[in-house]
Amino acid sequence: MRLFTQSQKLWAEAQKLVPGGMPAHLSPQLLVRGQSPCFIERAEGCRFWDVDGHEYIDYMCAYGPMILGYNHPKVEAAVAAQKKKGDCFSLPSPLWVELAKRMVDLITAADWVTFGKNGTDVCNLAVRVARAHTGRSKILMAQGSYHGIGAWCTPIITGVTEEERLQVLSFPYNDPAALENLLKQHGPEVAAVIITPFKHETSHDQEMPTEAFISGLNTLTRPEGPLLILDDVRGGFRLDLRGSAEYIGLKPHLSCFSKAMGNGYPISALCGAKELMSSASKVFFTGSFFAGAEALAASLATLQEMVDSRSLEHIFRMGEMLKQGLLDQAASLGLKINYTGPVTIPFMTFEDDKKFEKSRAFCARAYQEGVFFHPYHNWFLSAAHQEEDIRETLLATQKAFEAVKEKA
Amino acid sequence: MRLFTQSQKLWAEAQKLVPGGMPAHLSPQLLVRGQSPCFIERAEGCRFWDVDGHEYIDYMCAYGPMILGYNHPKVEAAVAAQKKKGDCFSLPSPLWVELAKRMVDLITAADWVTFGKNGTDVCNLAVRVARAHTGRSKILMAQGSYHGIGAWCTPIITGVTEEERLQVLSFPYNDPAALENLLKQHGPEVAAVIITPFKHETSHDQEMPTEAFISGLNTLTRPEGPLLILDDVRGGFRLDLRGSAEYIGLKPHLSCFSKAMGNGYPISALCGAKELMSSASKVFFTGSFFAGAEALAASLATLQEMVDSRSLEHIFRMGEMLKQGLLDQAASLGLKINYTGPVTIPFMTFEDDKKFEKSRAFCARAYQEGVFFHPYHNWFLSAAHQEEDIRETLLATQKAFEAVKEKA
Repeated sequence: MRLFTQSQKLWAEAQKLVPGGMPAHLSPQLLVRGQSPCFIERAEGCRFWDVDGHEYIDYMCAYGPMILGYNHPKVEAAVAAQKKKGDCFSLPSPLWVELAKRMVDLITAADWVTFGKNGTDVCNLAVRVARAHTGRSKILMAQGSYHGIGAWCTPIITGVTEEERLQVLSFPYNDPAALENLLKQHGPEVAAVIITPFKHETSHDQEMPTEAFISGLNTLTRPEGPLLILDDVRGGFRLDLRGSAEYIGLKPHLSCFSKAMGNGYPISALCGAKELMSSASKVFFTGSFFAGAEALAASLATLQEMVDSRSLEHIFRMGEMLKQGLLDQAASLGLKINYTGPVTIPFMTFEDDKKFEKSRAFCARAYQEGVFFHPYHNWFLSAAHQEEDIRETLLATQKAFEAVKEKA
Repeated sequence: MRLFTQSQKLWAEAQKLVPGGMPAHLSPQLLVRGQSPCFIERAEGCRFWDVDGHEYIDYMCAYGPMILGYNHPKVEAAVAAQKKKGDCFSLPSPLWVELAKRMVDLITAADWVTFGKNGTDVCNLAVRVARAHTGRSKILMAQGSYHGIGAWCTPIITGVTEEERLQVLSFPYNDPAALENLLKQHGPEVAAVIITPFKHETSHDQEMPTEAFISGLNTLTRPEGPLLILDDVRGGFRLDLRGSAEYIGLKPHLSCFSKAMGNGYPISALCGAKELMSSASKVFFTGSFFAGAEALAASLATLQEMVDSRSLEHIFRMGEMLKQGLLDQAASLGLKINYTGPVTIPFMTFEDDKKFEKSRAFCARAYQEGVFFHPYHNWFLSAAHQEEDIRETLLATQKAFEAVKEKA
C-alpha cells in the first residue's frame, strides 16, 4: 500500500508557513484528505512522481497548462535556445512580436493580442477593455463560472468590497432567455457578456453550450456593446487550435487565453477584434514579467508542435478511449456515472453521490494504483498520453470502480 | 552613429499586432522617440544587446527584476537542476515550502508567506487580506504611489468603474499630519494604509521617508486595524535583505515582494504577521502558474547568493560610485541635477526641465554611447555592475552631459 509519509510531513510544515497550508487548487485538502500525494518531485511526459517516490499517470496536467507532456523536447529546446539570450529584459524581446503574429494568424477571433502572466490578468483586462470601449459598466457572467480571482468575479468574496461586485450580474449558463431578459432590463448599461466555452465549474457535471445559447450570445452582442468575451483560459487549445470559439460557433469580440498556450510556462493572452484595438491601447496593463522571453518561446514552440503533430486530434482520440473505457467499466459493474464535457477536458461523477464519497473512494484507490484524477475538478488530457497509458490507466480504474462498488 | 533600424522595423510591426504597440513600460515610446532601442536580442551580466547589435550597460535591470546579473551562473544552475524535474505540476513542488521557510527566516516582518506571479497579485491580495481581517473597507494610499494594476489603485483609470475606487483615499507621501487627519475622519472604516519604502513615482524626484512619517505610520496602525502594508515590490532586496522595512524602521503587518526576488524569474510573495495568518487563509488566491518550481528555485538561489556574496553591499558601493561620478560631472559642467532616492534605485532629473527635454537629450546621447538610462523612470543597479562598468558608464555620461549643455 502506498503511504504518503513525505507528503504528509511537508504538508505539516507547509501549514506552519503558508496561510491554509497551500492556496486553492494547490492544496491537498481538495483531493482525498490523508490519502493523496501533496507534493510532486518531478514529472515527465504524462507522468509525475510524488515526494514519496510513487509514480502516477497524470490526468490533471498541472490543471491545464501541460498539453504536450512535461519536459517536452521541442518546447524545452526552444526555451533553452532563448535562455542563452535571456528571459526578462529592460525592453521586450522580438519574440513578443513573433508570438503576437503567430496568434493573430492562428486564432480566428484575434486581430491583435497582448500578453500577461495569469489567466486572471487577461480576464480582468478584457472586462476593463470592454468598459473602456463601451463607456458602460455592467458585466454579465454565467452563475458559478470561474474567471479568475479578480474582485469582480472571484468565487469566494472574502476581503472583497460590496462596491467591487456592484456592476456584475449573472444568468444561468445555457439559458438564452435569462440572458435576453437581463439584457432587456440592463442592455444600455452592459459593457460585456463573459462566458466560458463550456460549463466547467468545480463539483458539477459539465455542460456543452446549446445551439440556442450560442445563437443568443452571438445575436445579443455587438462591437459597440454589449461585447462578447470568451474566457478560453481553461478550454483554449484543447477544443480547437483556432480558439474554442471555432469549436462552438461563437463570435467573441475578445478572447482570453492562458494555461495550455506555453505547455506550462507562465503566459496569458488577450486577443481581440480590430474595432477594439484602440480602446485596448488606452487601458493600463503591465507587469514586471509580462515580456519574459522564455515563456514566449515556449508558447511559439507549443503552438507550432500542436499544428505540426496534429496533437489535438491525438488528444481527442485518447480522450475518447479513456471515456469509452470508463463508461464500459462502470456499466459492467452496474455503477451509474456521468461523464461530461469535452473528452479532452472531461469530468466524471457518480449518480447518487452528492457528497462525492464515491468520487473520493474512486480517486483514493486510483492514487494507490498510480493514476491521478481529481474528485471535484475536471480533468485534462495531453498529447503525451498514449494508448498504452490509457490501457494502464484502465487497469487501475477497474480496481477503483470495484472499490466504489464494494463501498456502496 | 547608432541607428535603430531593426528596432524601428519591429516597432512598426508591433503597432499592427499589439494595442499601443507594446504595453506600458515595455513601450519604446516612453524612452526617447525614434532615438532609442525598442527590442532586446540578448543580455549577459549588466549588459544587453539590442536587435541592431548595439551593446549597452543596463541601468534599468529589467525594471528591477535583474539584481545579480542577467544569466547569473548560480541562479541558472539552480533553475537547470529543477528543470530536469519540471516546473509547473498538478501539485506544488517541495520548493514552495523551502522558499517559504527561507523567506520567513530572512524577512523580519514575515511569519508566513504565499507566492504569486506579479507584484499586482500580491498587492491585491494584501488589500483583500486587510479587508478580510479587519472587516473594514477603506484603504489609504499615498498620492501618486504605484501599487500595480488592480482596479483599486491603477494609475490610469480607463476601464475602471467608479465603484471599484470608492473605498480608496489618498494622502501625500511624507505627510504624517495628513495621514493622521484622514484616520481621524475615517479611522474605524480603514482596513489598511499601504505605502512604498520610498517615494518613487515616475517623472518625479524620489523622496526617502522622513522619520516623522515612519513614526506616524508605525503608531497609527495596529494588528486589529488599520493595518500597515509595505509594498516592497520595487524596493525589495535593494535596500535591506531583511525587507526594506528594516532599512527605514517600518513595522508593517503585511509586506509585498516581487521583482528582484527571483533575479528575473516570475514570482511574487505576500508575507505577513502571525496575527493575520488565519485571515489570509480565508482569502481566495490562486493562479495556474503560482507554484512554478523553476521560479521558486531561482528565488532560493538568488536570496542565497545575495547573502553569501554580500551582494547588496556591493550594489550600494556601485550606486555610490555612479552617483558621485554623475554629480561631479554635472557640477564641473555647471549643470544642476537632482539625484534622488537610494543609490541602488536612483533617479536623476535636471533643474528647470519640466518637460524632461534635458533628460531626453541626456538619455539619447547615452544610448549612442552604450549606456541605458530612462528619462522618466527610476533606475536600478545590480551586483553585476563592477567598478570598470561604472567607469565606462562615466565616460559615456560625460558626453551625455555635454550634449545637454550644448543644447541648453
